[in-house]
Amino acid sequence: MTAQPTKSFGAIAAELLDRVRSRHPLIHHITNWVVMNDTANATLALGAFPVMAHAREEVEEMVGAAGALVLNPGTLFPELVEAMLMAGKRANERGVPIVYDPVGVGATRYRNETGERLLKELHIDAIRGNSGEIGALAGAGGVVKGVESVEGVADPQAVARELARRRVTVVAITGKRDILSDGTRVLGVDNGHEMLKTITGTGCMATTVVAIFCSVEPDKLIASASALACYGLAAERAARGTKGPGSFRSSLLDELYHITPALLEKGARVVDLA
Amino acid sequence: MTAQPTKSFGAIAAELLDRVRSRHPLIHHITNWVVMNDTANATLALGAFPVMAHAREEVEEMVGAAGALVLNPGTLFPELVEAMLMAGKRANERGVPIVYDPVGVGATRYRNETGERLLKELHIDAIRGNSGEIGALAGAGGVVKGVESVEGVADPQAVARELARRRVTVVAITGKRDILSDGTRVLGVDNGHEMLKTITGTGCMATTVVAIFCSVEPDKLIASASALACYGLAAERAARGTKGPGSFRSSLLDELYHITPALLEKGARVVDLA
Amino acid sequence: MTAQPTKSFGAIAAELLDRVRSRHPLIHHITNWVVMNDTANATLALGAFPVMAHAREEVEEMVGAAGALVLNPGTLFPELVEAMLMAGKRANERGVPIVYDPVGVGATRYRNETGERLLKELHIDAIRGNSGEIGALAGAGGVVKGVESVEGVADPQAVARELARRRVTVVAITGKRDILSDGTRVLGVDNGHEMLKTITGTGCMATTVVAIFCSVEPDKLIASASALACYGLAAERAARGTKGPGSFRSSLLDELYHITPALLEKGARVVDLA
Repeated sequence: MTAQPTKSFGAIAAELLDRVRSRHPLIHHITNWVVMNDTANATLALGAFPVMAHAREEVEEMVGAAGALVLNPGTLFPELVEAMLMAGKRANERGVPIVYDPVGVGATRYRNETGERLLKELHIDAIRGNSGEIGALAGAGGVVKGVESVEGVADPQAVARELARRRVTVVAITGKRDILSDGTRVLGVDNGHEMLKTITGTGCMATTVVAIFCSVEPDKLIASASALACYGLAAERAARGTKGPGSFRSSLLDELYHITPALLEKGARVVDLA
Repeated sequence: MTAQPTKSFGAIAAELLDRVRSRHPLIHHITNWVVMNDTANATLALGAFPVMAHAREEVEEMVGAAGALVLNPGTLFPELVEAMLMAGKRANERGVPIVYDPVGVGATRYRNETGERLLKELHIDAIRGNSGEIGALAGAGGVVKGVESVEGVADPQAVARELARRRVTVVAITGKRDILSDGTRVLGVDNGHEMLKTITGTGCMATTVVAIFCSVEPDKLIASASALACYGLAAERAARGTKGPGSFRSSLLDELYHITPALLEKGARVVDLA
Repeated sequence: MTAQPTKSFGAIAAELLDRVRSRHPLIHHITNWVVMNDTANATLALGAFPVMAHAREEVEEMVGAAGALVLNPGTLFPELVEAMLMAGKRANERGVPIVYDPVGVGATRYRNETGERLLKELHIDAIRGNSGEIGALAGAGGVVKGVESVEGVADPQAVARELARRRVTVVAITGKRDILSDGTRVLGVDNGHEMLKTITGTGCMATTVVAIFCSVEPDKLIASASALACYGLAAERAARGTKGPGSFRSSLLDELYHITPALLEKGARVVDLA
């Protein structure tokens, strides 16, 4: 990225969206009960296909047919974590990218330990969380020194880069400015809207969009930043004329459905930070 | 049906909708986590009452009070399958109609085996799926010769009729034209809208509507075709002036709520194919 | 309450809403799968934060950080009931208020026994249900003489007062007029709209709103009545110009988000009945 002018990022994102729309990747979700419906609808709206399957009896077979695997233990319990590990190991064998959403890490020991276990036993291609979750993930594993578990992230760029480097993954911290790193490069994405905070599952949907883009592009940093630009731009468009969280939620699906490569090329606001 | 002019089908469907609206049948769902909310809301919108109960401790008692039972193993796991069998057996004893949605059959062995088991151990009154699922169900059980498990359905009328005949049930394949058969008669339903493909759970909602109509009419082929005409007509009306999948989803509930027997009588497009 | 003029109730409710908006309480839900998304969104719309966590591995730790605990066994199963008891006991130790929604009590023995168990092993701060559920809860435990389990409630004021007195809790029966009692005082809330009956989870959302208000006010009768006035007023406002249940559902979140202490002070319709 360092050699590319920022301007060209919109064109890259547009090309990836075009791939999603033409390839219709299958996105296998092992995800939380709260947002299953929303993430399935976001997947369909972008032109991909969702499948929600979590039984240990079938996750290995299912993930073999998928373009990406989402692991979102927002409503975790032991059998679900086992299913995530089974599916994740098979995904790693098959080269299916895994995107992990560390929902609520920092809130309980069980969530911290589960996050640690997923990161230890699997190769995760990208992690998408808010600053508290990513800070907790960095701190709980003792991976990034000086980061407290629930204190958020003082220097998000440094934490993203360090966590990405240690875990050999892409880290995306979403917020007013999304910060992404693969351990070397650091990107910022300025698309998005504060209405995203007013409904549940918007972080989980962002993770799903990251997985969709990761299914069509081997450079997971570029894929993740493109995904967050696309999702954030749809949110900006959805917020126009919206009356509140209920209508915003409905409009967000409408805009994810209508966003085009041309709109994304023009509207993506990605900055090179390293 | 063969002796009836196509025109009269609208009047039959209208009468069944009128029964639903006056009897408020209780529809017991053992269904998947993704669409629970949508199928409950579709049930209420049509004037029936939903109950979602899947614990083995209560499904037999619950189904005894129900007008129909929906079995939708979209997010299946062993305990849920056991609950489906327990509830299904009681439903069979009590004459409560069972409608089965073979979500994702063809995608994994576990889904194929579960489908096979439900069809073997229970008497299912109607099966509603897309062409891939019904094709897989027909092929996986070896019931219909020459049908490949995930290849869709080359001759949907022949597959519907043959699967229905072998399983002594009604088969409904939904698509651009819905094809239904009870093993002898074959009907087509031309109501519906392509926006139904843009949101998750629209197939599951169709299955729920089939169950609602089956709860008020002993002829399950007529009930199922009436249900799909009603649901498809509501979708057509919802698609008018809709801005995308989010607003379509909201409008679909509005239209299911507002559809009247008179509208259905006029708008049902059912054709006799055999 | 008896010494206060009814008019002042609006001011009290407004003050509690103001506390919710400034304190952002965390509301821990152990709730049913059907309504998880809706209740999370209702929580956010009012300015509180939802967390859905039900694993026995973490519920005790999670509830320790919460302002209130919602127990809603609408899709109950044994592990979930155990998690409710674990979280509830810790909540009792820590003084975290518990609000219980007896979904479907009266429909099966398992639901009745679960309700009885929760009320026996925990101190519940408030119970919110419809007349059938509260009647069943009163009758099933043999607590209130002469109340039949599924017959609804002939004299809701007497049942609410008696059940509240015996169980040392607040009982809220929602309906056209909500009836609330703490065993001594009895209040009526006339806010609400019949569109609430057309979508699923509106009772569950009411329970969530009761929990939110209970997290900021020690007098649980006042908190519960304020909550139901607030929720009912939002529903009234949402129903204006709504086209059906789908658009009402969306508008309800919009209105919960936009309702202000000033609107609530003016619009709350609470009457002192004892």
